[in-house]
Amino acid sequence: MDLQQIEAKVFGTPVPEVKRVALAYSGGLDSSLCIELLRRVYKVKDKDIVLITIDVGQGKDEVDVSKAKAGKLGMKAILIDLKKEFTENWLTKAIRANSDYEGYPVSTSMTRQLVARAVAQKAVAMGCDAVMEGSTGKGNDQYRMHNTFKIFAPQCKVRAPVRDFDMLRDEERILCEAWGVPVDEQIAGGDDKTLWCRSIASGAIGLDQELPDDIWMWLTVPPKAPDKTEEVTLSFEEGIPVKLNGRKLPLDKLIMDLNGVAGRNGIGYIDMFEDGIMDLKSREIYEAPAAHVILKLHHDLEQWCLTKDELEFKAVVDRKWAYLTYHGMWFHPLKAELDAFVLAASRFTSGTYRVGLYKGNIQILKRESATGLFSPEIRSIKSKGFSQKMAKDAAVIRGLPFEILARRGGIE
Amino acid sequence: MDLQQIEAKVFGTPVPEVKRVALAYSGGLDSSLCIELLRRVYKVKDKDIVLITIDVGQGKDEVDVSKAKAGKLGMKAILIDLKKEFTENWLTKAIRANSDYEGYPVSTSMTRQLVARAVAQKAVAMGCDAVMEGSTGKGNDQYRMHNTFKIFAPQCKVRAPVRDFDMLRDEERILCEAWGVPVDEQIAGGDDKTLWCRSIASGAIGLDQELPDDIWMWLTVPPKAPDKTEEVTLSFEEGIPVKLNGRKLPLDKLIMDLNGVAGRNGIGYIDMFEDGIMDLKSREIYEAPAAHVILKLHHDLEQWCLTKDELEFKAVVDRKWAYLTYHGMWFHPLKAELDAFVLAASRFTSGTYRVGLYKGNIQILKRESATGLFSPEIRSIKSKGFSQKMAKDAAVIRGLPFEILARRGGIE
Amino acid sequence: MDLQQIEAKVFGTPVPEVKRVALAYSGGLDSSLCIELLRRVYKVKDKDIVLITIDVGQGKDEVDVSKAKAGKLGMKAILIDLKKEFTENWLTKAIRANSDYEGYPVSTSMTRQLVARAVAQKAVAMGCDAVMEGSTGKGNDQYRMHNTFKIFAPQCKVRAPVRDFDMLRDEERILCEAWGVPVDEQIAGGDDKTLWCRSIASGAIGLDQELPDDIWMWLTVPPKAPDKTEEVTLSFEEGIPVKLNGRKLPLDKLIMDLNGVAGRNGIGYIDMFEDGIMDLKSREIYEAPAAHVILKLHHDLEQWCLTKDELEFKAVVDRKWAYLTYHGMWFHPLKAELDAFVLAASRFTSGTYRVGLYKGNIQILKRESATGLFSPEIRSIKSKGFSQKMAKDAAVIRGLPFEILARRGGIE
Amino acid sequence: MDLQQIEAKVFGTPVPEVKRVALAYSGGLDSSLCIELLRRVYKVKDKDIVLITIDVGQGKDEVDVSKAKAGKLGMKAILIDLKKEFTENWLTKAIRANSDYEGYPVSTSMTRQLVARAVAQKAVAMGCDAVMEGSTGKGNDQYRMHNTFKIFAPQCKVRAPVRDFDMLRDEERILCEAWGVPVDEQIAGGDDKTLWCRSIASGAIGLDQELPDDIWMWLTVPPKAPDKTEEVTLSFEEGIPVKLNGRKLPLDKLIMDLNGVAGRNGIGYIDMFEDGIMDLKSREIYEAPAAHVILKLHHDLEQWCLTKDELEFKAVVDRKWAYLTYHGMWFHPLKAELDAFVLAASRFTSGTYRVGLYKGNIQILKRESATGLFSPEIRSIKSKGFSQKMAKDAAVIRGLPFEILARRGGIE
Repeated sequence: MDLQQIEAKVFGTPVPEVKRVALAYSGGLDSSLCIELLRRVYKVKDKDIVLITIDVGQGKDEVDVSKAKAGKLGMKAILIDLKKEFTENWLTKAIRANSDYEGYPVSTSMTRQLVARAVAQKAVAMGCDAVMEGSTGKGNDQYRMHNTFKIFAPQCKVRAPVRDFDMLRDEERILCEAWGVPVDEQIAGGDDKTLWCRSIASGAIGLDQELPDDIWMWLTVPPKAPDKTEEVTLSFEEGIPVKLNGRKLPLDKLIMDLNGVAGRNGIGYIDMFEDGIMDLKSREIYEAPAAHVILKLHHDLEQWCLTKDELEFKAVVDRKWAYLTYHGMWFHPLKAELDAFVLAASRFTSGTYRVGLYKGNIQILKRESATGLFSPEIRSIKSKGFSQKMAKDAAVIRGLPFEILARRGGIE
Repeated sequence: MDLQQIEAKVFGTPVPEVKRVALAYSGGLDSSLCIELLRRVYKVKDKDIVLITIDVGQGKDEVDVSKAKAGKLGMKAILIDLKKEFTENWLTKAIRANSDYEGYPVSTSMTRQLVARAVAQKAVAMGCDAVMEGSTGKGNDQYRMHNTFKIFAPQCKVRAPVRDFDMLRDEERILCEAWGVPVDEQIAGGDDKTLWCRSIASGAIGLDQELPDDIWMWLTVPPKAPDKTEEVTLSFEEGIPVKLNGRKLPLDKLIMDLNGVAGRNGIGYIDMFEDGIMDLKSREIYEAPAAHVILKLHHDLEQWCLTKDELEFKAVVDRKWAYLTYHGMWFHPLKAELDAFVLAASRFTSGTYRVGLYKGNIQILKRESATGLFSPEIRSIKSKGFSQKMAKDAAVIRGLPFEILARRGGIE
Repeated sequence: MDLQQIEAKVFGTPVPEVKRVALAYSGGLDSSLCIELLRRVYKVKDKDIVLITIDVGQGKDEVDVSKAKAGKLGMKAILIDLKKEFTENWLTKAIRANSDYEGYPVSTSMTRQLVARAVAQKAVAMGCDAVMEGSTGKGNDQYRMHNTFKIFAPQCKVRAPVRDFDMLRDEERILCEAWGVPVDEQIAGGDDKTLWCRSIASGAIGLDQELPDDIWMWLTVPPKAPDKTEEVTLSFEEGIPVKLNGRKLPLDKLIMDLNGVAGRNGIGYIDMFEDGIMDLKSREIYEAPAAHVILKLHHDLEQWCLTKDELEFKAVVDRKWAYLTYHGMWFHPLKAELDAFVLAASRFTSGTYRVGLYKGNIQILKRESATGLFSPEIRSIKSKGFSQKMAKDAAVIRGLPFEILARRGGIE
Repeated sequence: MDLQQIEAKVFGTPVPEVKRVALAYSGGLDSSLCIELLRRVYKVKDKDIVLITIDVGQGKDEVDVSKAKAGKLGMKAILIDLKKEFTENWLTKAIRANSDYEGYPVSTSMTRQLVARAVAQKAVAMGCDAVMEGSTGKGNDQYRMHNTFKIFAPQCKVRAPVRDFDMLRDEERILCEAWGVPVDEQIAGGDDKTLWCRSIASGAIGLDQELPDDIWMWLTVPPKAPDKTEEVTLSFEEGIPVKLNGRKLPLDKLIMDLNGVAGRNGIGYIDMFEDGIMDLKSREIYEAPAAHVILKLHHDLEQWCLTKDELEFKAVVDRKWAYLTYHGMWFHPLKAELDAFVLAASRFTSGTYRVGLYKGNIQILKRESATGLFSPEIRSIKSKGFSQKMAKDAAVIRGLPFEILARRGGIE
């Protein structure tokens, strides 16, 4: 498609009338183009384009680039800092819930909804009648943002022009060039990163193609990682990591430091099939070094501090938690109810781990917990906790249903 | 306790009258002592002691040692070869069900029940009025065997003398020595091994003690493993691995070969808390190199060939499957029903993987499957599978419940 | 809207080009109008309009009316009799799965998919490039039929004109009148009936409005039902009712007879909120006398013949079964896997019940089963099945985890 | 067995040494006999027998009888009134969780644990080294009380003499008579009643025997119930019934009043198989008129005020809640976590119902709620909530996975 065809498509698509629009502005290609679409297609005046940039920890660089690009377009975004909110109210919940959707520790699944809420609330506060964002129509983010917009700004129209005008990325580039929208290839796709997990564009990677080594930001692949074990200690309080190597750290700092240490030791590699919101599979490549260490140890600690029944049931809750979060249902009432369960189930999950990180391996070297339920003094064969003899009758009682089944027969 | 005290304890415990006893005989310390207990305490004549040794793949060495020890005691065991039965009817089910109880791929959990069924059936066939086995009263095996005995020989009394006389291992040793029962320390504890997973006695290992390197049979710990990736291809048909490096192999051979390759590359290490049948935790160390490779690839293949709904539900089924198997409920009717589900869910799980094994890492290098559900031609942004525009209305429809929730309010 | 406006709307909506169309023709208002829309809007010739009427047990009257109406429009439908298929392959599965979606025994949820498969298969066989059906865009049936069409005729376009042209029922009536499409008010809405359950149009009934007595076909409301208990016996074999009052009957006949008996005794009334496929709630009124009796007794029989573990897990399976069936996923692979489970779980569900039906009450008078697991000879306090004393140690063993929890503290 | 044999059995059973014993004293046969067993067999002095009677709403009569009987034995029980605690902290949780174990609304399952906690806490406070209660060894209560004792008085020995001496009821009677223990047949078995549900001794009732009409306390069987509908209104606030017929009532009063009204209209009949803690089935007859009305309306209200996802998941939580409560795990940490979920899920469950009670039927006549999610203005065909046309694309998107499945084939 050439410029003329693309413009014909865009200008030929009927659009609803909007007066004032809050735009989720990341500074990426999609949301930058949105500014010009608002001006040219939606005929919205600059004073009615409310640019909102949310800092969820994508890094100062990205925020600065975003600011600069808005400036080039003659706009100034409202910057809302939600880093603390993200780590303290979202990542804590994720860690306690063992955050795992089919192997993906859910990351932008969360930030999209965090961003959408902030944009929607600002839209309402500033009297907008529409909200806009840059999602495509093939992915998951459109649903995550739409749901959240509809909860916090139900009266606003929702527009996602890349989807609504059915634009391909190449077409977007052509429009940007023609309309003077700055494109910085460096960070194209970069908005899919949080401190928790980085998504690596998987579109270009075939199923039988091996991954190049230069796609990673934190990760050194195992063969190139140091040939020496690096030891780390991590302490949890009520399910949350609070100390790294004995130093109390805020959670965001702790995760960022751990991304460094674990990543350079080959940890955090994810290559998986993922079932998207529309039930379509994609192949995804992620890196999440800190998440891998934290989630592995958190889970081990739970296996120590929770009873068998809790472990069994919490697995069901955790799975649903990740499902809802991934599917854009963070603000769904069920999510709040699962959070209540998970928080209650975390009251004893405290302890300290020493682990060795070595070329992709996380080996637990030492465990400490005052709230663990491992009681060798009862269980071990030599213990006086209970006499073995007692188990004889217990075995008979436990076996009674099998005697009844034997009478009925039919078992092979 | 000295010999006199131990004998007083044993002879002072009332025992039921038994005429003919089928003894599950592994050749280990416990079951060897049982022979002498049958003679001395239960007053059973040699002709009424039916020794049964089951070969479930513990290795020819163990079987030979068992035979020799029986010989020294003047007995001859009936040897029943269930290797084929174990791999073809038990391990296949385990693999299809992603066999995972809290991180343990369930191994002796299965063989105990397989052994108990064979012993029970033989007991019935040979007119025994009791079955006997060597479990202690602190572990899981007593329950697994009891349940199975009660299904297949409900009329037989069940005796587990180590438990019933409340004997410690040291006490057993003293008795063996005094009574002339041969003890071969080499294989003490060795009966906890199958080709699928080897259990390493964890009793002596404290929580803060690092594991020595010489406890492994298959495993070379990652730092000592080769510094070069070893590539392997594995093919699955309907959920079962059938080819290794392009060669069609029977499942037992395939697993044993893979234990070698994967083990020497640092794969298969398990250090975990495990919730036993009595809901008491133990720390367990296992090695399971082949199981780790097979289960990882099987799961990845399922994530490719099963729908999201199947994956979600099969996880529930698999978890219950492992729970039942671990808890000595292999022959429970529910297990059969889960098997029916799992078999049906495996009809499309076919494909071939090439993986790199490197110092504890299993990296997928290439995937092939004719039955996978990854359809980039529909999903990818450039595809013509569906127009992005269509997703706009889909997002609105999907978001309707959130509009209703917004009206009610109360969401933060 | 007047005729002119409606026609403007209909003719103004762009439609895809279609050559030959298979139309699911029930004879109702919606599908009758479809014929004329195919002629006038889609410009399809009569020879390329393939009318298909499926008999799923809606009654001979309805089928005859449908035939007559087609005749008046100069058409002749292909009649496919799926009554046997419906009862033998669909209702049997439903009964075994305790068929219950939020209180609704799922009925048209099934027949829509049965119809859609037949239409799709015929469409493929007759070289059609489109399939058409009469669903609206607010209900569940459009999704059920669409999914099924896409499985069995993926190459065909799917059209649902009432939805696609956004027509209200009044608008349809105006069009029918103007275009000479016969409307028989008698059976308007009547296509929502199967022998299993009849749906009563709930749209006009407010939340605070009591239901009139004349809306029922089978049901006599309890106050008007006979003042005398009517006794019935029902026998199940492997989960399926096979005899009524001692007479072996095919399932469809048995259900129809039972609808009569149970209905006249006040049984089968359903007034509920239902969560539709789009997650929107509706208030629904159904009558399902036979279903109520069969499902209650089937469930009681399962509670007798299945173990506790099976009951617990089958409840999860049944719930998912009903969910999938309701949501138009009958042909989804997961449904087939659940069916495998359910069938396996039904092998012991055999027995005979005598019940009293009285003014809405179903009272079990007598139960018989050769495969039940109730064994009073083991359980009762006087039995010799096991000594009470044995339970003492069993209670201690079972209570061990609570001793460990007590040490940790923190329980209120 | 005659007295001599029974005494031989009792005095011949070895008992542990105990100094001071807290006895759960209901005044029934079992716990009355315990006093004399403590004196004669355990050789405990009267000053060290701590009798504790808990009032959980069994009725003033029962409490008075209990007091009188203790008096006759020269003892005085400590009376602890937990009626308020039971309704406010236990029944509220039960109602919110739709309290249903296989059809049984769990009743004494709760009170046993409530009683055991109070006894255990008193035992600790008064320096006892043992706790005692009157359960048999065939039932569920021994486990419920044992677990609770072990949490709140882990240092105390637990004795249940009926079980520990393996006594049948007839044997107990003979002992009572010989030892001067008063037996009041009126209340034998009466301790199985709470205001929530009354258990009717089912031992004597064969499977094919119809129930006599005189076994009920609250219930008038439907044929004998009035031939006129009685209307009742019931209001819920956050899941708890707070008003009956417009009058605000404390929960215990409300339930007792409703037992009267609903019972006389034929409501509350339960005849079921129940899987006990030892996985053995029993046939149970209960009456629970108020519980039936409250639970039916609570559930209907939830179906109105909760989303589909919440309903689906809460059903899993509720089922587990009832399982734990029934199995003597009220104080298990998982129960507390489920309570956290259930409480959170109840914040919108408020509304008022008008129902007609008629010969066993509970018919909803009118529903009101300000927090319901039924929005006919969006869902109904005529509404402007959304255009039907939008559903067309939604159906296509939703159907995409079926297109992919169609390509793979293999669906029948």
